[in-house]
Amino acid sequence: MEIKSTEIKVRYAETDQMGVVHHAVYPIWFEACRTDFMEQLGYPYSRIEEEGFMTPLIKLDVNYKSGAKYGDTVLVDAKITELGLIKFTFSYTVKRKSDGALLATGSTTLACCDKNLKIINLKTACPEVYAKLEAQLEK
Amino acid sequence: MEIKSTEIKVRYAETDQMGVVHHAVYPIWFEACRTDFMEQLGYPYSRIEEEGFMTPLIKLDVNYKSGAKYGDTVLVDAKITELGLIKFTFSYTVKRKSDGALLATGSTTLACCDKNLKIINLKTACPEVYAKLEAQLEK
Amino acid sequence: MEIKSTEIKVRYAETDQMGVVHHAVYPIWFEACRTDFMEQLGYPYSRIEEEGFMTPLIKLDVNYKSGAKYGDTVLVDAKITELGLIKFTFSYTVKRKSDGALLATGSTTLACCDKNLKIINLKTACPEVYAKLEAQLEK
Amino acid sequence: MEIKSTEIKVRYAETDQMGVVHHAVYPIWFEACRTDFMEQLGYPYSRIEEEGFMTPLIKLDVNYKSGAKYGDTVLVDAKITELGLIKFTFSYTVKRKSDGALLATGSTTLACCDKNLKIINLKTACPEVYAKLEAQLEK
Repeated sequence: MEIKSTEIKVRYAETDQMGVVHHAVYPIWFEACRTDFMEQLGYPYSRIEEEGFMTPLIKLDVNYKSGAKYGDTVLVDAKITELGLIKFTFSYTVKRKSDGALLATGSTTLACCDKNLKIINLKTACPEVYAKLEAQLEK
Repeated sequence: MEIKSTEIKVRYAETDQMGVVHHAVYPIWFEACRTDFMEQLGYPYSRIEEEGFMTPLIKLDVNYKSGAKYGDTVLVDAKITELGLIKFTFSYTVKRKSDGALLATGSTTLACCDKNLKIINLKTACPEVYAKLEAQLEK
Repeated sequence: MEIKSTEIKVRYAETDQMGVVHHAVYPIWFEACRTDFMEQLGYPYSRIEEEGFMTPLIKLDVNYKSGAKYGDTVLVDAKITELGLIKFTFSYTVKRKSDGALLATGSTTLACCDKNLKIINLKTACPEVYAKLEAQLEK
Repeated sequence: MEIKSTEIKVRYAETDQMGVVHHAVYPIWFEACRTDFMEQLGYPYSRIEEEGFMTPLIKLDVNYKSGAKYGDTVLVDAKITELGLIKFTFSYTVKRKSDGALLATGSTTLACCDKNLKIINLKTACPEVYAKLEAQLEK
């Protein structure tokens, strides 16, 4: 299944006094992209939470190539690059829409947890989500 | 009881490309000040929530006088200026520590709610908090 | 000229532990709406800044009616409700897209400034922007 | 020279609906710690910028161990772990103050740039900063 990019217009509040988007905004864009990704898979993250599961981050990394600016629209793309029983990893690219310039890459590893943030086995606890993620796993 | 100022060092992430602190940061500083205020009253806000109460904002206003900058430390002061059975109002000033310059004033009105965000009577549901707020009410 | 709503999908990062969008997010949504508004008027805010003008907030107020939640999409609408020579006011509504429920109203008053944040006369310094705002002024 | 921890009280706005501090807040805490670090070295970051230099992030990573909560105070510690001519790396720990529990570790690599965000040689452009960082470099 082809997943569409998440399109984000830079917010003024996201800039800092260097005149570019502050680096702590990129993980928030990654997250907005994950939200869209799960929605496109037909299993919105809000439903996952309603069913009593949570997926807190256990690892984040970002490589910054060039600064996004106010006035820019960016395209964020995600792929599932690792899938385990208790954690899984999304990898991202952030590109400027106007010229396709690569602004950042990154990844987030999420744990599968219950409501009390105890680790659980995603495959047995939430087999439908596991199957959907598996079908998207990059070969 | 004399309530001490909340001292806040401006964070780089709080600036925007105008080179000053973004206006949406001030409500967050007000909130940090409320946290300190309730702690000084001997009833931390985290305890209020543990007991099943919430105090969402129903009204916010801010008047911006001069921009805080990265490198500044600010002093935020709060007073209880209105106290009703189901809502109460804090008023704030934000001053630059180095020279006492007034940067902003504002107020927030908070509702008294249960866990499901239904309005409740603070005086009967949480008499100790009500009494503490009342003792601080500006005459 | 009919100005279209700004459509915003709630970000997970925008929620707080009350389970609703944090109140300090609304001014950021207002600002995203202003960005779209000026773009639709044919004078993007980024161009205003490139020409050496800035419009810092001097006043903000928000009335919160009901909490936006993760999973919601909101529609933010702006109108010019006051226009002076050195300042102007936008008024906003925030509605939940799914059912039209009113979540918040508010307004922001912006000053007209040069690069050094000194007040200027918008009508003489930037007559095209002034004319465009005037044409949108609510009667 | 012994550098002191940066002490940060969790802000309500920093929590999300999982009931813990949102993961995108940690890079902001790292940055607040860098601010304190440079100040303690006697060369505040605001002075570096006044002199025409900028240090945008080129790399960020965070490992999350346990969630910080509203009500917690955290201690953030930084060390210089790599120092090159055009970039340098800080490594961090975030601990809960009350019990010393490790909440997160991470690192940020910063580039040395001029005002236009062009890479420069820190050692020649800003020898005093380079020397101060070198003196702190972990062996």
